[in-house]
Amino acid sequence: MQILILNGPNLNLLGKREPGIYGNQDFQSFYEELTAVYDDVASFRYEQSNVEGALINLLQEADGTYDAVVLNAGGYTHTSVALMDCIAAIDVPVYEVHISNPLAREDFRHTSLVGQKCVASVSGFGLDSYRLAVEGVLSQLAG
Amino acid sequence: MQILILNGPNLNLLGKREPGIYGNQDFQSFYEELTAVYDDVASFRYEQSNVEGALINLLQEADGTYDAVVLNAGGYTHTSVALMDCIAAIDVPVYEVHISNPLAREDFRHTSLVGQKCVASVSGFGLDSYRLAVEGVLSQLAG
Amino acid sequence: MQILILNGPNLNLLGKREPGIYGNQDFQSFYEELTAVYDDVASFRYEQSNVEGALINLLQEADGTYDAVVLNAGGYTHTSVALMDCIAAIDVPVYEVHISNPLAREDFRHTSLVGQKCVASVSGFGLDSYRLAVEGVLSQLAG
Amino acid sequence: MQILILNGPNLNLLGKREPGIYGNQDFQSFYEELTAVYDDVASFRYEQSNVEGALINLLQEADGTYDAVVLNAGGYTHTSVALMDCIAAIDVPVYEVHISNPLAREDFRHTSLVGQKCVASVSGFGLDSYRLAVEGVLSQLAG
Amino acid sequence: MQILILNGPNLNLLGKREPGIYGNQDFQSFYEELTAVYDDVASFRYEQSNVEGALINLLQEADGTYDAVVLNAGGYTHTSVALMDCIAAIDVPVYEVHISNPLAREDFRHTSLVGQKCVASVSGFGLDSYRLAVEGVLSQLAG
Amino acid sequence: MQILILNGPNLNLLGKREPGIYGNQDFQSFYEELTAVYDDVASFRYEQSNVEGALINLLQEADGTYDAVVLNAGGYTHTSVALMDCIAAIDVPVYEVHISNPLAREDFRHTSLVGQKCVASVSGFGLDSYRLAVEGVLSQLAG
Amino acid sequence: MQILILNGPNLNLLGKREPGIYGNQDFQSFYEELTAVYDDVASFRYEQSNVEGALINLLQEADGTYDAVVLNAGGYTHTSVALMDCIAAIDVPVYEVHISNPLAREDFRHTSLVGQKCVASVSGFGLDSYRLAVEGVLSQLAG
Amino acid sequence: MQILILNGPNLNLLGKREPGIYGNQDFQSFYEELTAVYDDVASFRYEQSNVEGALINLLQEADGTYDAVVLNAGGYTHTSVALMDCIAAIDVPVYEVHISNPLAREDFRHTSLVGQKCVASVSGFGLDSYRLAVEGVLSQLAG
Amino acid sequence: MQILILNGPNLNLLGKREPGIYGNQDFQSFYEELTAVYDDVASFRYEQSNVEGALINLLQEADGTYDAVVLNAGGYTHTSVALMDCIAAIDVPVYEVHISNPLAREDFRHTSLVGQKCVASVSGFGLDSYRLAVEGVLSQLAG
Amino acid sequence: MQILILNGPNLNLLGKREPGIYGNQDFQSFYEELTAVYDDVASFRYEQSNVEGALINLLQEADGTYDAVVLNAGGYTHTSVALMDCIAAIDVPVYEVHISNPLAREDFRHTSLVGQKCVASVSGFGLDSYRLAVEGVLSQLAG
Amino acid sequence: MQILILNGPNLNLLGKREPGIYGNQDFQSFYEELTAVYDDVASFRYEQSNVEGALINLLQEADGTYDAVVLNAGGYTHTSVALMDCIAAIDVPVYEVHISNPLAREDFRHTSLVGQKCVASVSGFGLDSYRLAVEGVLSQLAG
Amino acid sequence: MQILILNGPNLNLLGKREPGIYGNQDFQSFYEELTAVYDDVASFRYEQSNVEGALINLLQEADGTYDAVVLNAGGYTHTSVALMDCIAAIDVPVYEVHISNPLAREDFRHTSLVGQKCVASVSGFGLDSYRLAVEGVLSQLAG
Repeated sequence: MQILILNGPNLNLLGKREPGIYGNQDFQSFYEELTAVYDDVASFRYEQSNVEGALINLLQEADGTYDAVVLNAGGYTHTSVALMDCIAAIDVPVYEVHISNPLAREDFRHTSLVGQKCVASVSGFGLDSYRLAVEGVLSQLAG
Repeated sequence: MQILILNGPNLNLLGKREPGIYGNQDFQSFYEELTAVYDDVASFRYEQSNVEGALINLLQEADGTYDAVVLNAGGYTHTSVALMDCIAAIDVPVYEVHISNPLAREDFRHTSLVGQKCVASVSGFGLDSYRLAVEGVLSQLAG
Repeated sequence: MQILILNGPNLNLLGKREPGIYGNQDFQSFYEELTAVYDDVASFRYEQSNVEGALINLLQEADGTYDAVVLNAGGYTHTSVALMDCIAAIDVPVYEVHISNPLAREDFRHTSLVGQKCVASVSGFGLDSYRLAVEGVLSQLAG
Repeated sequence: MQILILNGPNLNLLGKREPGIYGNQDFQSFYEELTAVYDDVASFRYEQSNVEGALINLLQEADGTYDAVVLNAGGYTHTSVALMDCIAAIDVPVYEVHISNPLAREDFRHTSLVGQKCVASVSGFGLDSYRLAVEGVLSQLAG
Repeated sequence: MQILILNGPNLNLLGKREPGIYGNQDFQSFYEELTAVYDDVASFRYEQSNVEGALINLLQEADGTYDAVVLNAGGYTHTSVALMDCIAAIDVPVYEVHISNPLAREDFRHTSLVGQKCVASVSGFGLDSYRLAVEGVLSQLAG
Repeated sequence: MQILILNGPNLNLLGKREPGIYGNQDFQSFYEELTAVYDDVASFRYEQSNVEGALINLLQEADGTYDAVVLNAGGYTHTSVALMDCIAAIDVPVYEVHISNPLAREDFRHTSLVGQKCVASVSGFGLDSYRLAVEGVLSQLAG
Repeated sequence: MQILILNGPNLNLLGKREPGIYGNQDFQSFYEELTAVYDDVASFRYEQSNVEGALINLLQEADGTYDAVVLNAGGYTHTSVALMDCIAAIDVPVYEVHISNPLAREDFRHTSLVGQKCVASVSGFGLDSYRLAVEGVLSQLAG
Repeated sequence: MQILILNGPNLNLLGKREPGIYGNQDFQSFYEELTAVYDDVASFRYEQSNVEGALINLLQEADGTYDAVVLNAGGYTHTSVALMDCIAAIDVPVYEVHISNPLAREDFRHTSLVGQKCVASVSGFGLDSYRLAVEGVLSQLAG
Repeated sequence: MQILILNGPNLNLLGKREPGIYGNQDFQSFYEELTAVYDDVASFRYEQSNVEGALINLLQEADGTYDAVVLNAGGYTHTSVALMDCIAAIDVPVYEVHISNPLAREDFRHTSLVGQKCVASVSGFGLDSYRLAVEGVLSQLAG
Repeated sequence: MQILILNGPNLNLLGKREPGIYGNQDFQSFYEELTAVYDDVASFRYEQSNVEGALINLLQEADGTYDAVVLNAGGYTHTSVALMDCIAAIDVPVYEVHISNPLAREDFRHTSLVGQKCVASVSGFGLDSYRLAVEGVLSQLAG
Repeated sequence: MQILILNGPNLNLLGKREPGIYGNQDFQSFYEELTAVYDDVASFRYEQSNVEGALINLLQEADGTYDAVVLNAGGYTHTSVALMDCIAAIDVPVYEVHISNPLAREDFRHTSLVGQKCVASVSGFGLDSYRLAVEGVLSQLAG
Repeated sequence: MQILILNGPNLNLLGKREPGIYGNQDFQSFYEELTAVYDDVASFRYEQSNVEGALINLLQEADGTYDAVVLNAGGYTHTSVALMDCIAAIDVPVYEVHISNPLAREDFRHTSLVGQKCVASVSGFGLDSYRLAVEGVLSQLAG
């Protein structure tokens, strides 16, 4: 089982950015914990980019290579038709993740273009949202 | 750890209702599987009602008795200020669950009033959404 | 042929409520006239509730028992996603009825959520709207 | 009792146009069945036009000549202030009919300008919608 | 000075239609009074049609023949891009007239597509609105 | 003089719920103070329900029994056409009360469906809003 | 016959302000021409203010003193509920005038709050709009 | 206890303006009755202006001099950001009053900018709304 | 190959109307050039009408007779549900053409109802848009 | 070089009003510092009014007398068509200033009517916004 | 004649992506066919990028080098002000192309920001849309 | 004092692009003038990119290195949630600059997402907007 974890804009700042919303842990240390838990059932790759088109490139490359993508599209979640089109165009299933609960924040975060083409979504559990998404992926693909 | 699983309108029809969207399993058999997995770390209660005000009653009674509520508010998700107010008024944390991914359905399901006061949300994994929410609750309350 | 006639909020006030809009006849006397006309081709049951969830309960129970439901959802017509979901979830066909013509009243009555999942609708004929709906049901199910 | 049945744009294609939505029967054969049923209690005339202004002409001419008009305004239902004004300006009561249920179709069919000035409306029963409207007219005018 | 007075849908009903809004005088008798007053300074022609495209034909024919058009577009005022385009396409100046004050009626009458391409407008003076428009035309074209 | 004080969803939590907004006093103790003040001029009954339809039932029963209803519809204030219809359908005058000032809170609380059919409204004085409404009722009904 | 001509904000700049829209004549010289024409049938007073409340004062004072007010409310036309309320509150009829055609300008000029309470309106004839309004007033009040 | 009662545009017409909505009593006679009732516990001043900025001046001057302002901002209620800013800028608490119930009138009266910065509001009790507001002020400031 | 070229309102004015937008060539001379180019591969007919319903008639008649329709619906493009329904109802494929680029003009031209049921569209190439559409039709039907 | 600095409603409260947003310095002392810096290159006048129309008067008077106006229109920024018209009508260039950054405050402050006719704008630098605007004016008019 | 054909996000997937919408041919083989047809009258270059800013770079570089750009901006069509600004800023004319007909797809594809600055547009002919655009470019630039 | 001046899409075209809006000077020559003025009090770096994500990268790198960023986000100003999130996530203060006055241009430029997280903004002074922003930064950071 091959899983790509893909983070969008500003998520490279985790642990530094607005800790009241996003928490204190940096993504690298979390990622190591996460993959340690699941390394007997899946192998992982992690990518992050602030560039919308680079995220599209990575999603396209994941098609045929990975069994699932766990995607936190950050601010592009709410505005990117191009990312949404990409997810519809590729065969690999994509799962939406958010660290905070977007519904509990500003109005413009209450809608998600990207999520309209994702299989499922987890949000609001902090970094644990990623683990739960991986859990769900493994369960769903196993089923 | 005491967890209330609370289902809203029409979720008593699971297994019978629109299987293309909601799957074939009835909730009772799923619930037994779920609680069997977690019965050493948590105890559960399950309630369902089609009545908005009865869901409010159940949430109010859960306050002080349960450590968390896993709530699928069904069609009230998108329209009920009263449920939203209730979740804001009580101290027990509430976690939003949906079987399907509301963002991939009709426009009026793209917004959630109820979710604005929930801690976190899981949707689109079928019935496994409930298990992932329980996972997240246990992890978060343990943390 | 089994037909459930189901009235929503405030329709128990018929004959007393705003007679300029709803007329002077109470529903019970009308119902007796109606069923007398059709008692050789169909049997009827009548239920009314002011509680949204109770209407959902009655619709769910009608599934498998009745051949058709004639529904006047009153004020829930315009606001209830839960009722709309219920009608989509059950197999028994539902027919929408209104005593007055909602299009000739306030703007918020010009849209109908409930009607989006109904088979057909009759409105504006006063209490005779119910009879015409029954006529249509009998014709359609016979066809 | 004199009744004008008036059909708007594209309804001359019935039986040929989108049979999944509108059925297979052409209007002429239906019309003969319909008038045969009621020819002892009413006399009928049938007109159809694709021209908005011609429908207005026909409605104006009906005033003083007919006791009621059964109108399916087709696509003008949702856009024509001029037809709406005409119905308000004449004394003959107009009854709105639709073959399919507009609420179950595209969003722009969920509102009706024309219907705001009609007495009553029947929709979704297929061609039987016309018969039910005639039934309702006869009952209402007799009452 | 050649002036075309052009009336749109339902204005042939003047004197009969909704006298509380439009008054009791029929247009023909008013027109005779009007032209009697101005027959030494201008000659007039009067046309009315309920058909949007016929009004466009009349406006196009007026171009090069008349010095001004006094237009009451009735219900097409609020909905017709085609009439608006026509007025922009022809060189003869068009003046908008309404018998009642549209701003004092339903919301959908508060905007005017047709008026966006007219030179000027008079409304609310009853049939006298036509005379005032003629006055204004004569004054403006003389100036 | 008979007055029904009717509270909607979550108002049974007063004294416990969000004290920053709703204060620390529970409704029962306030109610005893209130009725003590006015027991020589009026008699009171107090009801609360979280169920929208139960509030409708209580309002209907109040008709013919009470001289006035003082209603805090809580979260149903902003969403319930059915409650609004009920108030229009009954003869007993209804007075709207809110503990906090809804205009100073979230945007969705700035409009009130229920209030559109009430005689008058008091909001923002804390629990004293109820007393002022009673004052106003007594003064108005005496006048 | 006593007529008050009342101009709102920036109309004291006529002849200087944006001559492409408003023309080159100052209001004083026009006013003298206008009153010279009608001084045997009516007497006039002219007032202008840039202050919304001063316009309200002048309208209130006109009530009982003047037979009609010809009002160009300038930029307050589109925004002033207070002026609109004033016109509804007084008995003297108010007639709306605009020099240019607001429908041919920016979108926010397409609606008029003030005009909703006026009897009639003339716009787009340049300063001649005032004369036509006076004509209409005299004709209407004489009638 | 010093209380300023401040009335906005057109409220000087009370007793004369639209008595069906505002009643027959003029404000001066009501004011004398009101202050007579409370003159042992508070002293009052009354001001009215039709000028938005003059109301702002009066509110600013009230700051530091009065303990509370009872404000009926009339038509500025719905449009004035400047008044709203003023109330936010001063320390004296402001209480909103309306004679009629704005929710039962036109749609544009259903929102209140001014009220968003007021402590509390009373509306719909006729002139008695002022007395209830004074009652509420005295009770709140005493508490 | 039989192709109907169908022009809507005001397109009979080509060469005369707003040459800055539509150019100087009249349609007849262009049409002769166009058909000369393609007369070995297709035969053509040209129709124009200002009447919405006449365009519907022509489209209906084209069904079964022509292989394709090239349609410039002019101002009806943006407002006509009836034309849109007609195109959906007939089997002959319809191709949308515009001389100018509607997206570069007023906002109300940015949406197209008619185009939602067309196969394809060409706009902004001046009269050459018609030739390109014919090219595309021939290529597509040949393919 | 003559520059008018013009402040709108509530800006006379600077130093006292909401210091978290507007700071602690009163405008008079700031104004003396500002003019001291620039008194060799420009002369200044300062005016403030809470009355919309008085601001219009001051702007009109500035025309022909001053080389530039630096305007903080306060709450009228977002609502005043009359001020916007005034700035368009006069020849003296107007520069918009705000102490805070309106984009970082409530939604209704995100749009500016007044600014649509201003040459340029500075906001968010506290009182220093005025100095920067003066700098910009001097630079632009010198250029 | 130098023509740049520029494709935006996800168009590198042609032939693989959603063949029901976009067809089975990959762009490279189509491009070779296309350029073979026109290589005596024009020379071509082809570029594709998923990155919005890279498309802007390519458009800027085309300015002064190419005679025309044929652009399919994919998902950026509907959201990119930056691309729209770029097309307005450069002198080389840009022609919009779409493979499918955006009007026949989701609502958010019915508007085009990018197209507002393009000369002309072709959509819905499959890959043949590119050839028709090239045809139109050659004809227009030759003319 | 270290200041980063950061320009977004199409600003590399300055001096060439739409000189009627943006002027004739290229940014490089302006930048040299600007830094010459301030080189004793601050050091500067200049970056430009057309890529949204590259701007995010540059802003993140500026954090901890620069004391302030002067940002002209060009077309991303109005559409980029990702840039807005970035500015909120970093500690270095960001100042918004525009060469023209966006409020005086198209409607979609009247709102700014990016500006909602900036400290302050200068627009409409041409290239001098940058100098004024630098002035403001130096003054604010010094204070």
